[in-house]
Amino acid sequence: MADMDWPSCGKSLKGVILDMCGVLYDSGEGGGVAIPGSIEAVKKLKASDLQLRFCTNETQLNREAFVDKLKRLGFDISVSEVFSPAPAAVAILKERGYRPHLLVYDGLLPEFDSVDTTNPNCVVIGDAAEKFSYQNLNEAFRVLIGLEKPVLFSLGQGRYYKETDGLALDVGAYMKALEYACDLKAEVVGKPSPIFFQSVLNDMRLQPHEALMIGDDLVNDVGGAQHCGMKGVQVRTGKYRPSDERHSTVTADGTVDDLAQAVDMILKQRH
Amino acid sequence: MADMDWPSCGKSLKGVILDMCGVLYDSGEGGGVAIPGSIEAVKKLKASDLQLRFCTNETQLNREAFVDKLKRLGFDISVSEVFSPAPAAVAILKERGYRPHLLVYDGLLPEFDSVDTTNPNCVVIGDAAEKFSYQNLNEAFRVLIGLEKPVLFSLGQGRYYKETDGLALDVGAYMKALEYACDLKAEVVGKPSPIFFQSVLNDMRLQPHEALMIGDDLVNDVGGAQHCGMKGVQVRTGKYRPSDERHSTVTADGTVDDLAQAVDMILKQRH
Repeated sequence: MADMDWPSCGKSLKGVILDMCGVLYDSGEGGGVAIPGSIEAVKKLKASDLQLRFCTNETQLNREAFVDKLKRLGFDISVSEVFSPAPAAVAILKERGYRPHLLVYDGLLPEFDSVDTTNPNCVVIGDAAEKFSYQNLNEAFRVLIGLEKPVLFSLGQGRYYKETDGLALDVGAYMKALEYACDLKAEVVGKPSPIFFQSVLNDMRLQPHEALMIGDDLVNDVGGAQHCGMKGVQVRTGKYRPSDERHSTVTADGTVDDLAQAVDMILKQRH
Repeated sequence: MADMDWPSCGKSLKGVILDMCGVLYDSGEGGGVAIPGSIEAVKKLKASDLQLRFCTNETQLNREAFVDKLKRLGFDISVSEVFSPAPAAVAILKERGYRPHLLVYDGLLPEFDSVDTTNPNCVVIGDAAEKFSYQNLNEAFRVLIGLEKPVLFSLGQGRYYKETDGLALDVGAYMKALEYACDLKAEVVGKPSPIFFQSVLNDMRLQPHEALMIGDDLVNDVGGAQHCGMKGVQVRTGKYRPSDERHSTVTADGTVDDLAQAVDMILKQRH
């Protein structure tokens, strides 16, 4: 059984990458709540000889504000350990000489302070929530359709997420709308993009087989990591659904109740 | 050459179907303007022994208001001759026992007066323009995702259209957003749906090979009609672009400068 086998990779393991929302905490009013055992699990990983990074598709807050939120929940995390789509997008924009038209959440705008946005030659969308108005989406569309070669970057490709008052459309839906209208394919920045996972591996100076990803999203966390050559383990918290364990295309290397159990199994293998 | 050949079908022809916007008139402020020669061309067709129907994906006005607009432009048209997506959708909804959540332009709502919309078990979207707010799209999404078997009807599947102040996203973009978020395929009502073209043929009591479609939209008018076994002719007015004449998948049976030229060629073949 995969569930019994995966911790055996623990012996050769040199680094662990953790998804955040749904693994460390559940989002909700007032910043959400820590998932039981997860604060202690992060502490144990930090006390081990394993490298640790955090990898999130969070795009409603800049990293500083996001890390502050997690510290308030009790986690020992620093900004330099957190990988999120916006800084990855900024690096791509600068490298390729793109000046974006930004359709993102206001809280994310500080991440783009260093980027030239005059006379845009591409569009960047993130989960803009109520900023996804008819006018704003049309404006982004008009920028794209006015370009000789339209280029669209999407910070993640989620379908929807849970808000305190119900489900809400995520950035992926609006990405599809613009892709169809402009007859183009967006470049996704963030999970499950291989470039994004590779940037985390590069930062740890590890090969894929030396790293393990733990997440609650079977396709974007587990499948994305596996696609890069890493192991991928799913937790039964966050957006996990029982049907994930019989998914048609993605099979996790292991499924555990929560982060605490995953960390205990990994560390037990190493001693 | 197809352009020389197609009028030869005129001898066996028994009915003509005309697209409206871009063939009869160009939209714009104050209801738009008639395309030169088109008012006279409609008169000539009506004076001939050919049956005549109008087929539009217009969804911002109900048929009465839409026909009134065309009468003011000088066209001799009656409501019973006009086929548009909303009445076709109403027929489908009633036939299959669907109670729709409606996300359509206010001007279209009267078409749905006879439909039960309590406790919705499907969603119908049309080009809702500024009613495509974040809140309204989320509301439609929540209705769909809350259904055991989500059903989405889309009145047309256009990518975008021209407004007086620039291009605007059409219903197809929002259809794609909801399709992706809910992992479903919408049922398109209107052109290029074969059911829609067939309903016009049924009304004329004609076989496909006895009818000819004239439109400015290569894919939805010409390709859609050809898919049903009709001939399809494109006019070089409206949304026609020169690149249409070397399209990868759709080749019109003929391409003419405008409706006036098409009608003259058809009637000349019959005498």
